[in-house]
Amino acid sequence: MPDYCMIYTGDWRQGVRREGIIDLGPGYPDPALLPSGLLADAATAVLTRHAAEALSYGANTGPRQLRAFLAEQVPGCPPEQVVTTAGTSSALSGVAAELGRRGAVVLTESLTYDLGRQIFVDRGLRVEAVPGPVDDLDIDRLRRFLAGRREPVAFYVMPTFHNPTGRVLGVERRTELLELAARTGMTIVEDHAYSRLSFDQVPAPLWSLSDDREKVITLLSLSKCLAPGLRLGGVVGSTELLDRLARDGERASGGGANHLTAATVAHAVATGAVARHVEDLVGELRRRRDALYSALAGRLPPGLTITRPTGGYFQWIGLPTVAYEAMLLAAAENLGVSFAPGSRFGSGHPGVRLCFAAHRPDDLIFAAERLVRAAEQIG
Amino acid sequence: MPDYCMIYTGDWRQGVRREGIIDLGPGYPDPALLPSGLLADAATAVLTRHAAEALSYGANTGPRQLRAFLAEQVPGCPPEQVVTTAGTSSALSGVAAELGRRGAVVLTESLTYDLGRQIFVDRGLRVEAVPGPVDDLDIDRLRRFLAGRREPVAFYVMPTFHNPTGRVLGVERRTELLELAARTGMTIVEDHAYSRLSFDQVPAPLWSLSDDREKVITLLSLSKCLAPGLRLGGVVGSTELLDRLARDGERASGGGANHLTAATVAHAVATGAVARHVEDLVGELRRRRDALYSALAGRLPPGLTITRPTGGYFQWIGLPTVAYEAMLLAAAENLGVSFAPGSRFGSGHPGVRLCFAAHRPDDLIFAAERLVRAAEQIG
Repeated sequence: MPDYCMIYTGDWRQGVRREGIIDLGPGYPDPALLPSGLLADAATAVLTRHAAEALSYGANTGPRQLRAFLAEQVPGCPPEQVVTTAGTSSALSGVAAELGRRGAVVLTESLTYDLGRQIFVDRGLRVEAVPGPVDDLDIDRLRRFLAGRREPVAFYVMPTFHNPTGRVLGVERRTELLELAARTGMTIVEDHAYSRLSFDQVPAPLWSLSDDREKVITLLSLSKCLAPGLRLGGVVGSTELLDRLARDGERASGGGANHLTAATVAHAVATGAVARHVEDLVGELRRRRDALYSALAGRLPPGLTITRPTGGYFQWIGLPTVAYEAMLLAAAENLGVSFAPGSRFGSGHPGVRLCFAAHRPDDLIFAAERLVRAAEQIG
Repeated sequence: MPDYCMIYTGDWRQGVRREGIIDLGPGYPDPALLPSGLLADAATAVLTRHAAEALSYGANTGPRQLRAFLAEQVPGCPPEQVVTTAGTSSALSGVAAELGRRGAVVLTESLTYDLGRQIFVDRGLRVEAVPGPVDDLDIDRLRRFLAGRREPVAFYVMPTFHNPTGRVLGVERRTELLELAARTGMTIVEDHAYSRLSFDQVPAPLWSLSDDREKVITLLSLSKCLAPGLRLGGVVGSTELLDRLARDGERASGGGANHLTAATVAHAVATGAVARHVEDLVGELRRRRDALYSALAGRLPPGLTITRPTGGYFQWIGLPTVAYEAMLLAAAENLGVSFAPGSRFGSGHPGVRLCFAAHRPDDLIFAAERLVRAAEQIG
């Protein structure tokens, strides 16, 4: 019998932990916060009591209870309006294929989720960033971008707990965006991956605020509130889009996305264990946000800006220049701390993305102190 | 607390069991043969001892031990030459995207896996069936199909335990096909989904027989030898193709396919439990093949042809006409038995596809007797 540990060597995990560095770069959950116990219980229950259902081809749309759980993130959305996917990544891929069929160009915010952007590019779509402020949307600029275009346009936007900035768009700007979409025929692709991780009241998602829900596609994820390795998420969209996703040849052949895991999570949702986990997780993330923000606020040199995140995974620090960003990264790594440089996510807004989800409060405070020291060294 | 059973109602499973009918149509494994125990053990072990690894983003190529297991189906193929996918369906989808980029046309056998064909069509590819005998390949015909074509051509073929016919191509025909591919630049897409379920010695897959392995893409699956709900399979192909699949934006963002389940199966592979299960399964499928074939052989009216399957899931019966096929289906269903009509899989070869995997031997014998009676009724 081979040693089962062999499977955990080498190419087992995406990314590599960097020795001797507290790395606040990756947007990963803390391994210690992953819900292994509830998933082990649910997997055992499902495989013991419902093996035939959980190991057969699943319904193309995904298990009902999982769709209902995903729909909770979108007020007014019935479970029937959600199709499960293998995470937001797979949802983006499916939506990109659909937009590609329509010959659409994809606009993004000036800073955006870099790997999301990559999925559009890899599906052959033209992607353009619309310049705008880091803490808001420039609707006029977006309007000018749209003027005179003949091809269909989709706008990929993360209104709630933005990656990388953590920003939340206000209701007014959301309404303006929806009005612009209604006037121009623009499709909105709303990335709602972090939406469950809310420390305060936030505006409803664009799908819920829209009069014309056919124009908004909302992407959901379990990667951030449960675990990335589950590879589960969902799409809320028009009946036509959902039908196309659910009846596509790949689904007709293979059934629902990631069926055994979907069944396992559906079971854990039904027992209430998932809701309890998410509540605990949000509490812990709030403590971590507090630890990191408090250790930075009022301590950074002039020219560095900081806003308190109200949810999600990320603390953003605005920097004066791209040159400063590179210097700060080098100085911080010299002191044993790293971060994701803002330039990774687009141009025009040098900055620092710090993930407060992956580390304990004491490590976050230590990292923040080193970062402050690095900034002071640059002067 | 909601009743967890809610998740098992309505849209839980793909397809619906038909009341009062022994349906040999669907190519599903028998729920009683699904390896729920070994998966429950492996899931518990992985989630207890290796939760951080199994619940994080997985390596883009999939866990090593799973790739090694998949590679076993292709003699001479190292684990590094396999990238895991969410089943053959997802592998077909990825390969179709790649062929689409090249502007390729896809040729199929006259009878082929209908939902595989659908994936190519749904990815925008032109698909054409090459007429040929039901129990072989017409290489000359294929050569004429290729003559004078300017666009790249891919040939989707299932040389081993063909769906729907169960046919196995001989070494000579495999060699001729590879020679034709070498001369014409044709890419071969070899669907090897049933390959582990072998009752006899069969020729090596095309990938293993080929001198130019860059020209052969081989698709692997765990759906038939373990469970469809796992949604796991793999692709063997050129280094360039595998790199593209593994570095695609969707993988860069979400990691390896279906990671938690992949980790669970990798663990079960490493303990030896999967190999034991497959051995038992092959023994049981052989008994079922024997039961069904023996109950049909020598009992069908003249004009109906039958060959003993040497592996896989399917018994094929050749019929004289499409009209006869429709009459036989109606007569059989009247007697409480159903099957997949051959016309579903292409034209020119009316027939009956019987899946002997999904039912116990006594049910198979009962169904065979009814089918013989239905054929006698038509006369």
